[in-house]
Amino acid sequence: MGWLCQTLIFMAVWCFVVHNGFTTPVTDNILITTPPTAKPPSKHEDSNCGYESCTKAKPGKLNVHLVPHTHNDVGWLKTVDQYYYGSKSSIQKAGVQYIIDSVLTELHHDPEKRFIYVETAFWWKWWMNQHDTIRHQVKKLVNNGQLEFISGGWSMNDEAVTNYQSIIDQLTWGFRKLNDTFGKCGQPHIGWQIDPFGHSREMASIFARMGFDGLFLGRLDYQDKMARFLTKTAEMVWQGSENLGKAAQLFTSVLYNNYAPPPGFCFDVLCDDEPFIDDKHSPDYNVDTLVSRFVDYVETQAIFYSTNNILLTMGGDFTYQEAHMWYKNLDKLIRYVNAQQSNNSTVNVFYSTPSCYVKAVHDVGQTWTTKQDDFFPYASDPHTYWTGFYTSRPTLKRFERVGNNFLQICKQLYSLTDLGPEDSVDLNKMREAMGIMQHHDAVTGTERQKVASDYARVLFEGFEECGIIAQAAINKLIANKKQSEVSRVDAVPIKSCLLLNISQCDILDYSNQFVVTVYNPLSHRVSHYVRVPVSGASYTVQDPTGKQLKIQLVPIPQPVIEIPGRVSPATMELVFYAKDLPPLGFRSYYISGSNHIHHTSKYKIHPGRDVILGNTKFNAVLDWETGSLKSMVLDRTKFSVSQDFYYYKGYIGDNKEFVNRSSGAYIFRPNGSEALSVSSTKKSSTYKGDLVDETHIKWSDWLSQVVRYYKEDTYHVEMEWLAGPIPVDDNVGKEIISRFKSDLLSDGLFYTDSNGREMLERKRNFRPTWSVNIKEPVSANYYPVTSRITLRDGDKEFSILTDRAQGGTSLNNGEVELMVHRRLLHDDAFGVSEALNETAFGHGLVAIGKHWLTGGNISSGTAAQRTRSLQQQVLLSPWLFFTPADNISFTEWVSHYKMEFSGLNQELPENVHILTLEPWKAHSFLLRLEHIYERNEHPVFSKPATVNLKNLFKPFSIVMARETTLGGNQWLSESHRFKWQSENDINFTLEDDEDSSKEDKDALTITLGPMQIRTFIIEVNFLQ
Amino acid sequence: MGWLCQTLIFMAVWCFVVHNGFTTPVTDNILITTPPTAKPPSKHEDSNCGYESCTKAKPGKLNVHLVPHTHNDVGWLKTVDQYYYGSKSSIQKAGVQYIIDSVLTELHHDPEKRFIYVETAFWWKWWMNQHDTIRHQVKKLVNNGQLEFISGGWSMNDEAVTNYQSIIDQLTWGFRKLNDTFGKCGQPHIGWQIDPFGHSREMASIFARMGFDGLFLGRLDYQDKMARFLTKTAEMVWQGSENLGKAAQLFTSVLYNNYAPPPGFCFDVLCDDEPFIDDKHSPDYNVDTLVSRFVDYVETQAIFYSTNNILLTMGGDFTYQEAHMWYKNLDKLIRYVNAQQSNNSTVNVFYSTPSCYVKAVHDVGQTWTTKQDDFFPYASDPHTYWTGFYTSRPTLKRFERVGNNFLQICKQLYSLTDLGPEDSVDLNKMREAMGIMQHHDAVTGTERQKVASDYARVLFEGFEECGIIAQAAINKLIANKKQSEVSRVDAVPIKSCLLLNISQCDILDYSNQFVVTVYNPLSHRVSHYVRVPVSGASYTVQDPTGKQLKIQLVPIPQPVIEIPGRVSPATMELVFYAKDLPPLGFRSYYISGSNHIHHTSKYKIHPGRDVILGNTKFNAVLDWETGSLKSMVLDRTKFSVSQDFYYYKGYIGDNKEFVNRSSGAYIFRPNGSEALSVSSTKKSSTYKGDLVDETHIKWSDWLSQVVRYYKEDTYHVEMEWLAGPIPVDDNVGKEIISRFKSDLLSDGLFYTDSNGREMLERKRNFRPTWSVNIKEPVSANYYPVTSRITLRDGDKEFSILTDRAQGGTSLNNGEVELMVHRRLLHDDAFGVSEALNETAFGHGLVAIGKHWLTGGNISSGTAAQRTRSLQQQVLLSPWLFFTPADNISFTEWVSHYKMEFSGLNQELPENVHILTLEPWKAHSFLLRLEHIYERNEHPVFSKPATVNLKNLFKPFSIVMARETTLGGNQWLSESHRFKWQSENDINFTLEDDEDSSKEDKDALTITLGPMQIRTFIIEVNFLQ
Repeated sequence: MGWLCQTLIFMAVWCFVVHNGFTTPVTDNILITTPPTAKPPSKHEDSNCGYESCTKAKPGKLNVHLVPHTHNDVGWLKTVDQYYYGSKSSIQKAGVQYIIDSVLTELHHDPEKRFIYVETAFWWKWWMNQHDTIRHQVKKLVNNGQLEFISGGWSMNDEAVTNYQSIIDQLTWGFRKLNDTFGKCGQPHIGWQIDPFGHSREMASIFARMGFDGLFLGRLDYQDKMARFLTKTAEMVWQGSENLGKAAQLFTSVLYNNYAPPPGFCFDVLCDDEPFIDDKHSPDYNVDTLVSRFVDYVETQAIFYSTNNILLTMGGDFTYQEAHMWYKNLDKLIRYVNAQQSNNSTVNVFYSTPSCYVKAVHDVGQTWTTKQDDFFPYASDPHTYWTGFYTSRPTLKRFERVGNNFLQICKQLYSLTDLGPEDSVDLNKMREAMGIMQHHDAVTGTERQKVASDYARVLFEGFEECGIIAQAAINKLIANKKQSEVSRVDAVPIKSCLLLNISQCDILDYSNQFVVTVYNPLSHRVSHYVRVPVSGASYTVQDPTGKQLKIQLVPIPQPVIEIPGRVSPATMELVFYAKDLPPLGFRSYYISGSNHIHHTSKYKIHPGRDVILGNTKFNAVLDWETGSLKSMVLDRTKFSVSQDFYYYKGYIGDNKEFVNRSSGAYIFRPNGSEALSVSSTKKSSTYKGDLVDETHIKWSDWLSQVVRYYKEDTYHVEMEWLAGPIPVDDNVGKEIISRFKSDLLSDGLFYTDSNGREMLERKRNFRPTWSVNIKEPVSANYYPVTSRITLRDGDKEFSILTDRAQGGTSLNNGEVELMVHRRLLHDDAFGVSEALNETAFGHGLVAIGKHWLTGGNISSGTAAQRTRSLQQQVLLSPWLFFTPADNISFTEWVSHYKMEFSGLNQELPENVHILTLEPWKAHSFLLRLEHIYERNEHPVFSKPATVNLKNLFKPFSIVMARETTLGGNQWLSESHRFKWQSENDINFTLEDDEDSSKEDKDALTITLGPMQIRTFIIEVNFLQ
Repeated sequence: MGWLCQTLIFMAVWCFVVHNGFTTPVTDNILITTPPTAKPPSKHEDSNCGYESCTKAKPGKLNVHLVPHTHNDVGWLKTVDQYYYGSKSSIQKAGVQYIIDSVLTELHHDPEKRFIYVETAFWWKWWMNQHDTIRHQVKKLVNNGQLEFISGGWSMNDEAVTNYQSIIDQLTWGFRKLNDTFGKCGQPHIGWQIDPFGHSREMASIFARMGFDGLFLGRLDYQDKMARFLTKTAEMVWQGSENLGKAAQLFTSVLYNNYAPPPGFCFDVLCDDEPFIDDKHSPDYNVDTLVSRFVDYVETQAIFYSTNNILLTMGGDFTYQEAHMWYKNLDKLIRYVNAQQSNNSTVNVFYSTPSCYVKAVHDVGQTWTTKQDDFFPYASDPHTYWTGFYTSRPTLKRFERVGNNFLQICKQLYSLTDLGPEDSVDLNKMREAMGIMQHHDAVTGTERQKVASDYARVLFEGFEECGIIAQAAINKLIANKKQSEVSRVDAVPIKSCLLLNISQCDILDYSNQFVVTVYNPLSHRVSHYVRVPVSGASYTVQDPTGKQLKIQLVPIPQPVIEIPGRVSPATMELVFYAKDLPPLGFRSYYISGSNHIHHTSKYKIHPGRDVILGNTKFNAVLDWETGSLKSMVLDRTKFSVSQDFYYYKGYIGDNKEFVNRSSGAYIFRPNGSEALSVSSTKKSSTYKGDLVDETHIKWSDWLSQVVRYYKEDTYHVEMEWLAGPIPVDDNVGKEIISRFKSDLLSDGLFYTDSNGREMLERKRNFRPTWSVNIKEPVSANYYPVTSRITLRDGDKEFSILTDRAQGGTSLNNGEVELMVHRRLLHDDAFGVSEALNETAFGHGLVAIGKHWLTGGNISSGTAAQRTRSLQQQVLLSPWLFFTPADNISFTEWVSHYKMEFSGLNQELPENVHILTLEPWKAHSFLLRLEHIYERNEHPVFSKPATVNLKNLFKPFSIVMARETTLGGNQWLSESHRFKWQSENDINFTLEDDEDSSKEDKDALTITLGPMQIRTFIIEVNFLQ
């Protein structure tokens, strides 16, 4: 029997064994080796965690690593609390408190048993409720390796629609809690991304830089998976970055059966599989049958892997609530299967963990294939592309992104003002809220509506807590008194307005006189056009020097005013230019009503004559009548580009077979490949003024857009779209796209960002690692656009930046489309059992967002510079704080309060910024510096950058800085990752990496290579 | 607000709270105080079990006893093994192994926690699989009272269709295992009959005589329950016997909510109730709501009980598989509810057990009402009378009864021959099979078909094991060699034929010459007409002396020959008279084919002249043409009596409301109150001979009957009915009854036995303790007829005895009907989800059985004597063993083997018999003597009887006899039951009872009062 023939049989068996429905698998595995506090990690002399604790694989046997695990969604069909407590059982039988209790009881009783736990959000909730006795017992289990934390983030984050900063934060916060509790033995070694719907390269890079040794994936394209199994390349060395070299490469293993146990071996109270019945007198005695079925299964699985080790995921969603059922039967499985070794069976089964598996595989010492791209998009069958969630719940996605913006500000302000004791509960609330939001059913939009509302509630509470911090911090900074004399009673109210996106700010409704404090979280001076919704006729804006700034009043578009739920008397937005805001600092502006009328007059259209927004070097040309974009000039080079809104009809099926899959929260499946035009009769009005020109275009009652150009130093056009309530009276769900058509010769290629950092090349109807067969021509070409999608034509680059993740693609050369909103009437049968039909105030949900069009030359770096810089400003925008000042004049204000502050003594080099500045422990902070350019992206900025930390910060000096891995939980010098031999080895390493001498030169002058992030725990000394 | 008004409000609340569906509650509580082995019970000096371990009730508080429990059906929807292992989860999520494991883990962790366990069949299965370490831990839990065994039988037996002997056996066997394992602390104190479908008085009597202190009931008539709650008489002193006085009275408590927890407080993995969410920051925080709901509930419940204690059953069917969920939330319940005491709440909640509750209630010291009748029939709503199961699965019911017959023989033979080591596995198999059969979903016929088949398998295996014992024992007894020289190799085959009821015995198919050994398990000489199916033309039967007996060959009725599945060449039955079989002994008969033709000729009918079966003193008169019964003579007094078969159409409903209940396995609900005639055109043939006259009557293809009269010393007419396959081509389920109409003036009264012992008076459309409102005129008058139903008219008594339990009633004066078979096409929605539609070999199931018509004078005692004697012979019939003897002549046989044996040196007095003789431990046996007459039933036999045990048995002498409680697990002298004050106190006690001096006079001469059973552990000395 030839190879082909054998393979076909194996594949048939595999298909039979593995395919139990619509889903397909992926996973991740990584590892770390030392603890992470400012103090040198305490030694656990009596501990035997980590690789030392592993049961050794037997040579000459097929070593079957049984990995007991539970997958605890941090919200999905139920809220986080409901999952934790196990309430609302009728929705889903799932109670994390019981799972943890139950597993620990089992582990206590038998040192052979092992378990991994992943989601620190739940873990911590549980831990906080335990008595010291229990805690002590648990520590023993962690120290002897029975209980291993894996991945260890606050949640198992999504990889498609998340930003790298939030991923790093949520992992770091999880690690921190584990470190505080368990020290070295609590450090995760392995990435465990078993459920997210596709996998980003940046995630692999982050894990690698966190010192992980491996990554397990549960879900990847079914064709990819098939191809990998056929070629025994389900395990590989993933090169996670084009910039970071070996430091970002990571051993990656694709799980065989998602994260499920072999069919028939789910011994959970949630499953109906048969237990071992080992009473030989029973008519139901089944040991021989089960053993033989198991052996068949593992021998089949082993065919597709290249070592004599295989891993079985013995668990699933919220399994192990009754852990005893599992372990009792797994004990029997091990006993009865291994007993066959005396009959020459080669199967050797034992309790293991993913890290022990990685260790065993590593010890085999073979050479691995490599991978350079990512695992997007994820398809589980020919008609099921998980590309809908790239856009699902656009407003929640934006709220999350704003959350990151504010969290960073909150952390910075907290640190800069030495606000209080470490681990402030207030700050943690937002840290944790953002950790939860990263979950792969949170920001993804794939949760139930009630759960989405609860996420919003939790995040909102985080905003409120951070609001308190910000107010306290800014009060400290503006006070002319000594810090110690400032009490909360004296505090000046410093409030955020979370509804500025719909031009509503309640604080201003009753104030004709107020102070706007604009905080800039970036490490460079930033200029920002401030927009404030107002109801008065005219205003005066004064900067700290008393100088009156130019202002412009721009009408709020009617569709915004009419958004259901908007309650505001404001009809105009006051615009002024906050120039050169200090880095990590703020400037306050005093605004008061005036009688002088400052209306922006409507621009008088000249029929037939295009409207030009911008200048000769950079502009956009709009049709005089419809406002349609016609062309743009980037760096004096004109190209033709139009923009219009279309919609896809969501496919409606009964989900009973692949081919009948509905478009839903997860899945984007258009009914037909043609997008339909929203309207052919657009109407537009243009407003021009000193600061900004904007054209308001209305497609229909539910779709409009403002095209906007700010006049000073601007290299982008802003498009603020408004979509919704999407009409569904025709019983057809609709997925709305903004499509740009240009004459750029893009040659089937386009580029999307990976979690907001590095760019990946995409090619239409193509996958880099296998010959793809596409039955869904639209959705199969969708990719997550976390922050940016780019076309290139020769030296020209044209990018669209987004303010949140969206699905995007280029279906034809020169074209780009981004899906901005979707409203569907059918479920796509992946468990949510609800249609993605968001409503608010009794109407379909309205979403508002922004696209920024920018670009330039590639070779000169203008494209990169504009895009990177804008990307930073979108991610970490200046934040507006408002203070009513009705009873206080400018003069009084300026005499009482400081109006400007910078946290830095000087700006950082343009290619570097402070990614993280947050309070850590005692007198230490966590500091991350980031090089924001890729290699070869810019002639100057792509070069390494050097920063001296010593006198970087104004309020404090850095006494000591010690570098850690990216997660902040391990001294970099103590991180020793496995070395892997690969077929396509990378020939460079980062200078800080693999360098044993790095401890010696911990001078405060540090250098960063392209895309490098360096993490430090710094001890600081506040200057009084 | 007056009392009535308050009561109405309370009732409304109660209805709202309690009624969650169709079911209604009952329970039992009893207790014992010392251990039960032949040796004085070992002292557990360090133990703190029993009442001493109870949490004390607080005076002035409402003391809420939380009783964590699980109800583990010993088979129902799944088989015993399937329930034990938790397999077939898709049928029902239930795994007893996990329940026990899980509960014990919880108990270990907290000494406050308590649990009760009931079903020893499961417990023992679990215990046998445990390591000594675990066993040791469990003993601690039992010794400190955390784990309490309650009821303690092998199963929770049904009370309607079970025979007292099997109930006693199954409880005794359970107790034995508990005693062996745990000693004193393993002794059950309380009866816990929370699920059986109505309650017999005999059961209360048995529990009382077992030394129990209380009984809890879950299910009783909904009207009864309502009435009791309204009058605060849900707790009472039940007077369990009209013969046994105080010894049989028992405190009985009706549970409030069946055996379920308060609505909303089921913290089980099988339930969906909300857990305590006590994180005040959670939007789902619910502590205040739950506490207030709980307090409302218990305060309402308390209204209906008369002490300041109430019991909450915190559990249900197969709950506690994940015990931790329960206890974690119950801990919180206790904590948060009791915390309210500081706010003047009077509610005091704590972990408790039924025995602790009984203790607390007893200590209140109040006077209780009494009850003299029983709790049959059970109705859960106006149309739902649980009277169908009295007949459901008639063949399984009969198989169970035959099982008891053979088990007693097996035990006797084992004991009489000193067969082997104690606790023989072989004997236990049948003990345990019969223990399982008593379960309230086994012999009741309310299990699924597959489970019924499994019960039959288990019971059949019990028969096989007992067959091996019987063969070994009889071989020892017949051997002329010394016992020590008899080996199994030499053994003569001694086989049973289990299909004699359909005239099939495979052993005889190929033997023309064989020995029939007839074993008599009764303690008196018994004469028996032996019937053997044969295919030869004629036979010679020789008794041990060589004397040829009279024989008669009777044709096997054609309907029997045609029964689907019957495979036998036999067309005739050979009848001979085995006169005066020795007590506890046997006689063998040698049978050989002969050429002499012995055909019974068909009786020549004389048209118009009645067929008379019997003699002048006792006879039955049949119509010459149809064979219909016309009249009978009892003691020379004639009365008119006819018999015919009818059927009720089973009601068909969708079960969505009470009124739409279908007739089903549990429920008998005829469609209309009139029974329809099976046939108006019967055909009959009569056969007369020297030994027996019989008339074969055929109603239809599926219904026939033989009316039979044996000629010597006979005071009964035997009717052998055959019903089935019941036709259902018309899609109507049918329930077949045999109805007797007589001219007896029964005045609405009739009498049925209670578990085969005492008789209870029944009155049509009446209940003794409340004014009943009947909407189902037929089924509401059905009662379980375990062995006998009786009419009286003046001094005349007419009884029909059954060979198994059947439903029966008297719907009109002089009438009696018994339901013999039922086949239904719809489920009655109590969980089985199958229609009771039994089939075999592709046809509806055929059932064959016997009714015996007897009676006589009441005052002279002839009625009682005939009935009691016949009842004994039906229950413990002579048993036929067969041995092929083709190669051995009578002369050879008689020279090799003894052909007669008696275990007794003399018969017992006619009113006493040996109820139990079985191997116990080491050289001890368990012996029970029973007085088989009630008080005032017979002028002579109702008097006390005296027996000297010393030389009673032939093979051994009794060295020592020590009396125990009925369950054999406690020295009678050490049993000290609670004393209860009751309104209607009984004025007599049994002489052995309440007598502290009984130990002193343990001479071997014992006296038994009417209906008394005395139990002894005897030490014996075998005579060689």
